Amino acid sequence: MTSSASPNVPAPTSSDASRTPIAIYDTTLRDGSQGEGVSFSLQDKLNIAERLAEIGIDFVEGGYPLSNEKDVAFFQQARNLDLGNTQLCAFGMTRRRRMKAEDDPGMQALVAAETPCCTMVGKTWDYHATEVLGATLDENLAMIGESVEYLARHRQVLYDAEHFFDGYKANPAYAIETLRAAAAAGAQWLVMCDTNGGTLPEEITAISAAAREGLADFNVEFGIHCHNDCELAVANSLAAVDAGALQVQGTINGIGERCGNVDLIAVIANLGLKKKNYEVLGDRPLTSLTELSRFVYETANLQWRGGQPFVGQSAFAHKGGMHVHAINKAAKTYEHIDPVLVGNERRILVSELSGRSNIEAIAGKHNLGDDKELMNQILAEVVRLENQGFQFESATASFDLLIKRVSGKFEPHFETIKYRVVAGNRDVTHDGSFAEAIIKLKVGDTLWFDAAEGHGPVNALDAGLRKALTGAYPQLSEISLIDYKVRVVDSAAGTAASIRVNIESTDGKETWGTIGVSDNIIEASWQALVDSVEYKLHQE
Amino acid sequence: MTSSASPNVPAPTSSDASRTPIAIYDTTLRDGSQGEGVSFSLQDKLNIAERLAEIGIDFVEGGYPLSNEKDVAFFQQARNLDLGNTQLCAFGMTRRRRMKAEDDPGMQALVAAETPCCTMVGKTWDYHATEVLGATLDENLAMIGESVEYLARHRQVLYDAEHFFDGYKANPAYAIETLRAAAAAGAQWLVMCDTNGGTLPEEITAISAAAREGLADFNVEFGIHCHNDCELAVANSLAAVDAGALQVQGTINGIGERCGNVDLIAVIANLGLKKKNYEVLGDRPLTSLTELSRFVYETANLQWRGGQPFVGQSAFAHKGGMHVHAINKAAKTYEHIDPVLVGNERRILVSELSGRSNIEAIAGKHNLGDDKELMNQILAEVVRLENQGFQFESATASFDLLIKRVSGKFEPHFETIKYRVVAGNRDVTHDGSFAEAIIKLKVGDTLWFDAAEGHGPVNALDAGLRKALTGAYPQLSEISLIDYKVRVVDSAAGTAASIRVNIESTDGKETWGTIGVSDNIIEASWQALVDSVEYKLHQE
Repeated sequence: MTSSASPNVPAPTSSDASRTPIAIYDTTLRDGSQGEGVSFSLQDKLNIAERLAEIGIDFVEGGYPLSNEKDVAFFQQARNLDLGNTQLCAFGMTRRRRMKAEDDPGMQALVAAETPCCTMVGKTWDYHATEVLGATLDENLAMIGESVEYLARHRQVLYDAEHFFDGYKANPAYAIETLRAAAAAGAQWLVMCDTNGGTLPEEITAISAAAREGLADFNVEFGIHCHNDCELAVANSLAAVDAGALQVQGTINGIGERCGNVDLIAVIANLGLKKKNYEVLGDRPLTSLTELSRFVYETANLQWRGGQPFVGQSAFAHKGGMHVHAINKAAKTYEHIDPVLVGNERRILVSELSGRSNIEAIAGKHNLGDDKELMNQILAEVVRLENQGFQFESATASFDLLIKRVSGKFEPHFETIKYRVVAGNRDVTHDGSFAEAIIKLKVGDTLWFDAAEGHGPVNALDAGLRKALTGAYPQLSEISLIDYKVRVVDSAAGTAASIRVNIESTDGKETWGTIGVSDNIIEASWQALVDSVEYKLHQE
Repeated sequence: MTSSASPNVPAPTSSDASRTPIAIYDTTLRDGSQGEGVSFSLQDKLNIAERLAEIGIDFVEGGYPLSNEKDVAFFQQARNLDLGNTQLCAFGMTRRRRMKAEDDPGMQALVAAETPCCTMVGKTWDYHATEVLGATLDENLAMIGESVEYLARHRQVLYDAEHFFDGYKANPAYAIETLRAAAAAGAQWLVMCDTNGGTLPEEITAISAAAREGLADFNVEFGIHCHNDCELAVANSLAAVDAGALQVQGTINGIGERCGNVDLIAVIANLGLKKKNYEVLGDRPLTSLTELSRFVYETANLQWRGGQPFVGQSAFAHKGGMHVHAINKAAKTYEHIDPVLVGNERRILVSELSGRSNIEAIAGKHNLGDDKELMNQILAEVVRLENQGFQFESATASFDLLIKRVSGKFEPHFETIKYRVVAGNRDVTHDGSFAEAIIKLKVGDTLWFDAAEGHGPVNALDAGLRKALTGAYPQLSEISLIDYKVRVVDSAAGTAASIRVNIESTDGKETWGTIGVSDNIIEASWQALVDSVEYKLHQE
């Protein structure tokens, strides 16, 4: 039924007839950028588009060219990218009321973006059309039909049916009419959007089926676009695929407005690895998913989500000693997939809940072999330190040094002679506070003495320590602190509260965590700072 | 079929026969504490248990008494808590191989915990029993049956069937046999655990139905316990409820090992507000969910998850101008529920705070009445301070003082002239570190000057502050610090990282929280200490 003057961009095909290929449509660069705290530079957007193409994402929505100059520039510069088989899409809306499609600035911006595909969003919900747009229901249908028709003369058109599920619940017949208007005008994909993220999986299933039935006389494919307001976006996307949708729209890491869009990482991994009857990304291995996830977090300058399914740092981290014992015997007891399949890795956390199994697993990484006696010494040292309040699960660099110390392989690069901090408020005539540190160290037979100011005593100590060591170890100037955490812990003795300091450091390439414990926060911080520097020096 | 010598703890009942009550079982204090970076003090655990009881959680699992002394102490002290209708549960495992149940230390620890309910986990998966436990399949059934039977003589027993879904897929008949062994021995609840978090919703539905069918001749109820490794834990929990489960186990905010347990916040909100045929928490309003979520994050010293469904700071935050325009015309266009229903609020500007309802609720306690102008001033001050990194969720005493300051009712009891701390390591011939503080204050026209030593600079400041004030306010000697937390936060300005200090103080009767923020940890601590003392003095 559909006729389109644009070159046909087919749904992906599969070599394995028993598996249905599902197209992945990424809108990180457009819907994702609506997320709180997210702001991509032009170069960020180009870099992300290239990465998405590399791993085989089928469609990449680059932006909304009417909305800002950055997106216009993106589409201009994106013409120079080699995106392989990935289709670049520009996003826009149906024409305004009382305007011809060809005169609408949004339509013109879409055509000017010169992408193989355009994604056009229109109103499905009768309430939304009348109350927010102030359009009659027939006007809204005309806006959809004429906009798609105009655009389909120039481009492949995907039609995003905004609020499709809410609209269907309010007025099923009208919701189907809006889809039919888009299909009749030449849209090749009809994408059902759960714009508010409030729809439940069983509703997705039922309404998706109704949509297919209502469009049975058209040669169109369906897509799904979910938001995560009920923490059901992944389940809803999978439910729509099971109901026949052949395209899933979402963002990397689920970034996006409110609770975010569906996380394409989880969608891709579930479709590719868990559900057996679908194929994604042309059946490529999914081993770069973890790297892609972290690349997008870093580019967006967002905190990683440690517990993120499949790709989080903790996604395959084991803490309970009993679990670790079982994992060593048979990984599948506490791992639903092999972490290597998504480019992630197993991590064994050392904690008060862990036993010998954890230590053995970690020691394995240090090539300590079968030295039972050494293992017992390490275990005893961990227990002793944990009783003081140490916790090594995120202080792997300190744990690394602990193993070196116990096994006699630790050689200190310097000796602390003394450190002092002074901190307080300014003279009453000034605002704010001050902090200063004085450091005296010995490297070999040479004494080094230095002082530094800082934003606080730890910052001053950190600066002073590296200043005092720079003469002997100039490479330490590369290190900087990226996180500092403090926690009051009850020591096993139960007398005085101990303070645990965790520091995360980076040299721009690697990051590492160290720990210090004392009843004096300054001493605890000093221990963690010293470990951080020693770890870096031992790596070389 | 079931007989139990323990007092019967029924499933919750509903006044509305058309809605099925679903019991909520919280394991934040046990399974949640397996999460990376999570470590609760004894007092943290007692505080959380009380909060959970306040909002009407049906079951609270307090810990695993065999595993550590802290959990033993928790159950001892929890006897003094008033938990209303909430049932406290102790967690343990089936007896060891070749040991009588009554001789097993784990069983004895469970009984010694003296809780109304015990939750016992056992192996469902044939592979797990034989490969990891090294038990025969019959031995495993005997371990389940004898353990439950022994415990059911003393307690209400919930049986957690570990790896139930993986076990069923591997050997359906045996998986059902393990449930039947528990039911025959007197377990009242059979909880199907997706331990690996790898099960898909359609599998949950089918296997739950098979379990009910396999236990049709027993008078038992079913529960569901999901992990989030596929980002499907909420969908899976809802699917199990739709398939007849009457209990959902999970943790607040979904904290837990790997990708976490199911987030009970989303489960409660979906069951209570979205799905129409269920009732949770005795049909109480869910308006304290947001506060509960943040309380648990603060107590665990974890970062909030901004995009967390229902309760995240961004969950009802609108960035796009078009959305904001629509929201102003009709909120339901971009909000799937009214945020007030879960104690959250709409945010239009990025810098606007969450928690207006909290402010109004707390302001209500101060008899501020309907003074809209004052409310707006308080709101503006909170926004200003939140942009600096303040966070008043668990610093209610500082918030109390803020209201007094804004409404002109604050009269300082003293003026800080100066404070100084000096801290460092001892002379190399001595072990350990030192910290000293010097304080100069003005009370009325009198200057007070004093110095104190402490375990660390904050302890010294605290001691010095109270020492300097004791002459004027002898009652301050009753105060002591019971918790001290530090968090690095990014200020809204985005230039330098700020440090947030939370202090919890007690006078033996009341406890109160205060806060300070600065780029200098000593200054931040000083602010929180001063607020703590001022709060105490204002209370009198």
